[in-house]
Amino acid sequence: MSLHIEKIATSKINDVDFSKLSFGQIFTDHMFECDFENGAWQTPKIRPYQPIAFDPSAKVFHYGQAVFEGMKAYKDKNDDIWLFRPDQNQERINKSAERLDMPAFPKELFFEGLNELLKIDSQWVQKGEGDALYIRPFVIATENCVSASSSKNYKFMIICAPVQAYYAGEVRVTFADKYSRSANGGVGFAKAAGNYAASFYPARLAEEQGYQQIVWTDASTHEYLEEAGTMNVFFRVNDTLITAPTSDRILDGITRKSLIELAKDEGINVEVRPVTRKEIVEAARKGELKEMFGAGTAAVISVIKGFADQDEKFELPVIENSYATLLKTRLTGIQQNKLEDKFGWRYKVQ
Amino acid sequence: MSLHIEKIATSKINDVDFSKLSFGQIFTDHMFECDFENGAWQTPKIRPYQPIAFDPSAKVFHYGQAVFEGMKAYKDKNDDIWLFRPDQNQERINKSAERLDMPAFPKELFFEGLNELLKIDSQWVQKGEGDALYIRPFVIATENCVSASSSKNYKFMIICAPVQAYYAGEVRVTFADKYSRSANGGVGFAKAAGNYAASFYPARLAEEQGYQQIVWTDASTHEYLEEAGTMNVFFRVNDTLITAPTSDRILDGITRKSLIELAKDEGINVEVRPVTRKEIVEAARKGELKEMFGAGTAAVISVIKGFADQDEKFELPVIENSYATLLKTRLTGIQQNKLEDKFGWRYKVQ
Repeated sequence: MSLHIEKIATSKINDVDFSKLSFGQIFTDHMFECDFENGAWQTPKIRPYQPIAFDPSAKVFHYGQAVFEGMKAYKDKNDDIWLFRPDQNQERINKSAERLDMPAFPKELFFEGLNELLKIDSQWVQKGEGDALYIRPFVIATENCVSASSSKNYKFMIICAPVQAYYAGEVRVTFADKYSRSANGGVGFAKAAGNYAASFYPARLAEEQGYQQIVWTDASTHEYLEEAGTMNVFFRVNDTLITAPTSDRILDGITRKSLIELAKDEGINVEVRPVTRKEIVEAARKGELKEMFGAGTAAVISVIKGFADQDEKFELPVIENSYATLLKTRLTGIQQNKLEDKFGWRYKVQ
Repeated sequence: MSLHIEKIATSKINDVDFSKLSFGQIFTDHMFECDFENGAWQTPKIRPYQPIAFDPSAKVFHYGQAVFEGMKAYKDKNDDIWLFRPDQNQERINKSAERLDMPAFPKELFFEGLNELLKIDSQWVQKGEGDALYIRPFVIATENCVSASSSKNYKFMIICAPVQAYYAGEVRVTFADKYSRSANGGVGFAKAAGNYAASFYPARLAEEQGYQQIVWTDASTHEYLEEAGTMNVFFRVNDTLITAPTSDRILDGITRKSLIELAKDEGINVEVRPVTRKEIVEAARKGELKEMFGAGTAAVISVIKGFADQDEKFELPVIENSYATLLKTRLTGIQQNKLEDKFGWRYKVQ
């Protein structure tokens, strides 16, 4: 099954101001696409980025059967293009797909499509400070039928958007008391489309109260701190770095697991265990809560400056020797081929 | 803001065999469509049913921001077309939309679009025994951007599919022990697209074990029986009809609330309260569990013949004077304008 490639006549890249990009709104010249029909993945295609016709009855519109991934590509000073642990994304999209009763996408096709697409659109990967290409693989249900059951047909796609360094401004968060993101036995661990839609309204309410993110708690008791917005969350109490273990409620974040390894490599004491809001509030009261940050592909690390637990507000101290700064410098250095990659995480596009 | 109408040149109705319909695969000649852009709903349109072009970055594909409704229209012997409590669907789609941070669709536009569409496609509402037109209003996020936040743009649509009497065969169910459908603080009460995708995999596992549906339990303890597949669930213990109260986990079903009123009207003792799996298993052991059925728009009432609680299997007795038969006869009689409508639930399309 060979990849079918149709290139654009003229690139639209000269119309793009790379110094003024909003996240995820401008896409490269091409897209990768592969349809699942009659029980099998059909011939994959790379073709000019363009709208696609869907029947209004396509299942993705009605039942949210859709999963995705987020990745970034970086260009180094030699014009080589690098990905970060893409095998992890490839495995995770299939884990997400399995939970949503969708077919796995073959590993070879994933890497063939990804490599070819990045080579064809290589000029879209800029090499300025903070520049990257955000890559969005996703799978959607395309059967034209409104009965509430799994789709027979699917479309796997990869689209790419040039992005600049992500900075969301000063971030303060509030601990969730009422709304929940996921439950035991649910789909919280998957990058399932519906998880995100469910978080938008609580996030808006938080924002109206002055908080840029919600720290999600467990749905049963609201006593455990689990994720920050769409990111995993880390706490530094004195000199120990703490984050919740993955579960069927918590995403197995690639940035999260990489930061855990890097922290250990730096000699930091890391605890992966359930984190209670009570202990974090008490640590903050005692001045022992030194740092709090979110971890994810888009922002890498998003520093949290303060938080609210019900009506009580806390500000975090400005500290020297911050773990967030140390770990972000090291992780982005590896991603961008500026630092040694002792774990073998970098992947060269070729 | 007047409705723009573009009719098809030639109806495709003569190509349809109304005696061999699969649920939700054949659609009528027209569709209703209205876009939300620049903060407002734009001119609504009725136009020939057809595929629509979407950018691959449309938010519905990535974040599952989508809600829907299910309704049915019936044609009586005088060729009048009737809907059942459409005000309830109109209110509920906006409640669902609010939870997913989507704009409300105006009531007047909803009814204008619905009435006009049903008048234009009136010949698609057949009047044979069991014939109906299934109506699917839905709203999807259409902004072309992959940042994980609420869409700025949306599309509201109504599409319609002729259907026959729904019969799923003999239904046996299993009580959920591991997987969950929704949690406190989540979106279970909403007809949110992602709720359905999350249920497909557990439903498939149940089916492989010989069960056509799952009775969902609460995510925290799995001790309470909450919904059956995509339907609300009722239990008859001796002569009392029991169903769980609505909550943020349980859909406020229109068939459910109508059956509660009809049962009371028939003099049946109805209890709306949390239902434990323990009490239902004990009732079954004592021979006091007389009936169990699902309630929803598609099937109206779906009789459950047996169930499994972990490894223990139970068959329900065949009984005379079944509540399911009584209530279904009365409800469908009202829906089809064959019986008196003392609650004022019927709505005439005009």
